[in-house]
Amino acid sequence: MIKHLRSAADLDAATATLILDTAGEMAALSGREVKKLPALRGRTVVNLFYEDSTRTRISFEAAAKRLSADVINFSAKGSSVSKGESLKDTALTLQAMGADAVVIRHSASGAPHRLSNWVEGSVVNAGDGTHEHPTQALLDAYTMRSRLGRLDGLKVAIVGDVLHSRVARSNVLLLTTLGAQVTVVGPPTLIPLDVAAALGEKTQVSYDLDAVLPDSDVVMMLRVQTERMQDSYFPSAREYSRRYGLDVPRLHKMPEHAIVMHPGPMNRGMEIAPEVADSARSTIVEQVANGVSVRMAVLYLLLGGK
Amino acid sequence: MIKHLRSAADLDAATATLILDTAGEMAALSGREVKKLPALRGRTVVNLFYEDSTRTRISFEAAAKRLSADVINFSAKGSSVSKGESLKDTALTLQAMGADAVVIRHSASGAPHRLSNWVEGSVVNAGDGTHEHPTQALLDAYTMRSRLGRLDGLKVAIVGDVLHSRVARSNVLLLTTLGAQVTVVGPPTLIPLDVAAALGEKTQVSYDLDAVLPDSDVVMMLRVQTERMQDSYFPSAREYSRRYGLDVPRLHKMPEHAIVMHPGPMNRGMEIAPEVADSARSTIVEQVANGVSVRMAVLYLLLGGK
Amino acid sequence: MIKHLRSAADLDAATATLILDTAGEMAALSGREVKKLPALRGRTVVNLFYEDSTRTRISFEAAAKRLSADVINFSAKGSSVSKGESLKDTALTLQAMGADAVVIRHSASGAPHRLSNWVEGSVVNAGDGTHEHPTQALLDAYTMRSRLGRLDGLKVAIVGDVLHSRVARSNVLLLTTLGAQVTVVGPPTLIPLDVAAALGEKTQVSYDLDAVLPDSDVVMMLRVQTERMQDSYFPSAREYSRRYGLDVPRLHKMPEHAIVMHPGPMNRGMEIAPEVADSARSTIVEQVANGVSVRMAVLYLLLGGK
Repeated sequence: MIKHLRSAADLDAATATLILDTAGEMAALSGREVKKLPALRGRTVVNLFYEDSTRTRISFEAAAKRLSADVINFSAKGSSVSKGESLKDTALTLQAMGADAVVIRHSASGAPHRLSNWVEGSVVNAGDGTHEHPTQALLDAYTMRSRLGRLDGLKVAIVGDVLHSRVARSNVLLLTTLGAQVTVVGPPTLIPLDVAAALGEKTQVSYDLDAVLPDSDVVMMLRVQTERMQDSYFPSAREYSRRYGLDVPRLHKMPEHAIVMHPGPMNRGMEIAPEVADSARSTIVEQVANGVSVRMAVLYLLLGGK
Repeated sequence: MIKHLRSAADLDAATATLILDTAGEMAALSGREVKKLPALRGRTVVNLFYEDSTRTRISFEAAAKRLSADVINFSAKGSSVSKGESLKDTALTLQAMGADAVVIRHSASGAPHRLSNWVEGSVVNAGDGTHEHPTQALLDAYTMRSRLGRLDGLKVAIVGDVLHSRVARSNVLLLTTLGAQVTVVGPPTLIPLDVAAALGEKTQVSYDLDAVLPDSDVVMMLRVQTERMQDSYFPSAREYSRRYGLDVPRLHKMPEHAIVMHPGPMNRGMEIAPEVADSARSTIVEQVANGVSVRMAVLYLLLGGK
Repeated sequence: MIKHLRSAADLDAATATLILDTAGEMAALSGREVKKLPALRGRTVVNLFYEDSTRTRISFEAAAKRLSADVINFSAKGSSVSKGESLKDTALTLQAMGADAVVIRHSASGAPHRLSNWVEGSVVNAGDGTHEHPTQALLDAYTMRSRLGRLDGLKVAIVGDVLHSRVARSNVLLLTTLGAQVTVVGPPTLIPLDVAAALGEKTQVSYDLDAVLPDSDVVMMLRVQTERMQDSYFPSAREYSRRYGLDVPRLHKMPEHAIVMHPGPMNRGMEIAPEVADSARSTIVEQVANGVSVRMAVLYLLLGGK
């Protein structure tokens, strides 16, 4: 088993499949009767969050607590960080305190890699800059597999601001490893110039959502970072929504069996219409539930629980 | 048993009495020797706080932990909420994560009702706007009953900014259900215009604190929201304190057995004199202690613990 | 055993030695196999932090959880405190909620003493203004003893802004009690005018770091509070670093066996050079690890765990 999960590229097909299978067992065990498993009793998991992300933090916290680990939440807001402490010194502190795993969210791409040089425990990337968010990709893959029965050969469209999306990058890496065929879709200014270099040679590109929909098994809508809308390369909100928003007419262009995904939180009415978000083909609520199971599996396997 | 506690109006006399009796058992069990009860082991209680209220949050957290539940604190500050996530999407997230109970504090009146449409778990209102704060009313009723031996027929004066007080509204509803006689007291601009419509036909009104004191078993002072003092309808601080503040001479106008209550935090010297707050007839510290027992009882009964 | 730890002056030599010995046992027990000790199961420890200090809060939280206590974090930011609640009312609240120990960090010197008048549980000072930080002194003494084998007769230089440092004050008190010889070193404007009155008659003073180094067993560098650098009595950053910063040439002036300490977080390149901070003679990471063991010992002994 790998020691850290810093990038979806840390995962070969066998390891990724083991995580997905273990997540399935966790979901089955986490019924009402046996919500609490003793696997990580006495282990300490630190949530080291330099950026706010309550949803991701809570998901990891719930996962760790269901495995009976102790959880310590470390928010960099108002911490020694604001007194100029370096990531290295923070890492040495956590190391000295005996953290078995550090779940890190950071605005700087690559922070989890650097952190893993300084701690003995396992490092889990919970989102680093515009780089990666590998547990999101795992929970997305888990959701696709559980809805559609397989990943190999699946046609997945990832739609939106692909250029700045760590969710997109981790998904492309993981899905390609697991045999899916990914097409990234968005306005040219929000797609990497050299897609093969940025996302691998197998990744396809389209600027026309309507053309891609009829041949997709999965349509994953990315969140619009509304703070980027000020930037000159970003289309106007109306223009974006008109060309790349998933509304009801577009939903009907998708095959009967195809599903709609979104990592949340959604901008209802912007990249996704409320009726689509709440439709039976949307997996958005399942994704959240699956996130806890997948994070349980990741912590369990990285920490060698038994 | 009811499933949610969104309003004191959710409680009929039998249910309210069951909660108060159970709180008494919780208090008896929570002695030093058996502080931790296993009743809710493996259950997850989420504190979803859109407004700061450390005291209420800690009280619920202590109650849930004494029942061995896992507690996850979700502060809306710096969460996805600030990214525009709706209450509905947050609710679906908590639902997906398997929350057994959600304790919600929100600035919008009615938020707990809306939340209960979207989650399977129990919803407990920890204060919504100017609407209600039912566990405060329960701990107040518990305190009155334990000091004075009964609620039926008790004469209770609630003094201050009744118009904007969720504590007042929940207390009036609950106390009336349990047979007490409530009089609301304050300056005319801080009392609802149509008291019968707002607080029920049995509720009496007075603008003269000195006239009410001699015939009261309980005098409950409301906190002055000092931020409201800017408003034109609010008397000056000096005027307010002179007419509606509970000082030592006024304490002596109360019957020997009568008690003084305050939900905290107090403005000492404004609505209550320090000597009164610290007198033997003040129940302010007991109210806080009783709050933990009452919240244990509510969580225990709503979640069907045994 | 004492009930509170408000000041290093609460500790006589026998009590301080008992704490250090107990910390050694805690460290031995806290290996990977038995990380969680049942000693404080069912007890509640409240972290009452009026100032941000994530590192100290986490250290106490980790210590309490390893002893199986329940931990409630109370940050004064956005709490009733901002609504004008007094420390006394907060104390009564915590008392009523059944806190067995309150760990307090406060910007006002003396706050822990006042708090101990109002609560029945134990009070532990986690830093009050410019006054004291006794658990820091205990972990420093523990680190010295474990590296150098003894405290009695040890020569300790404490270097920097001694005037405003609670770490310096607590260390001087504790180390003197335990038989060490302390010299405080810094620019005249950052040393108390009357050292004998401020820090005891046995404490020596020097303004010349280079003269002190060759005769020191321990050199403890204080953190520069960069926000103080605006003040007229503070030397310029360059001047400070040149005269009182510990760089590699100065490290070589120390005896072979001497160690370098720092309470963290460091300003690398200001009071300490990176090469010195990371050298084998630096105990900075050990200090953090020892902090958890020492705080376990303090909570265990104050709460009478067994």
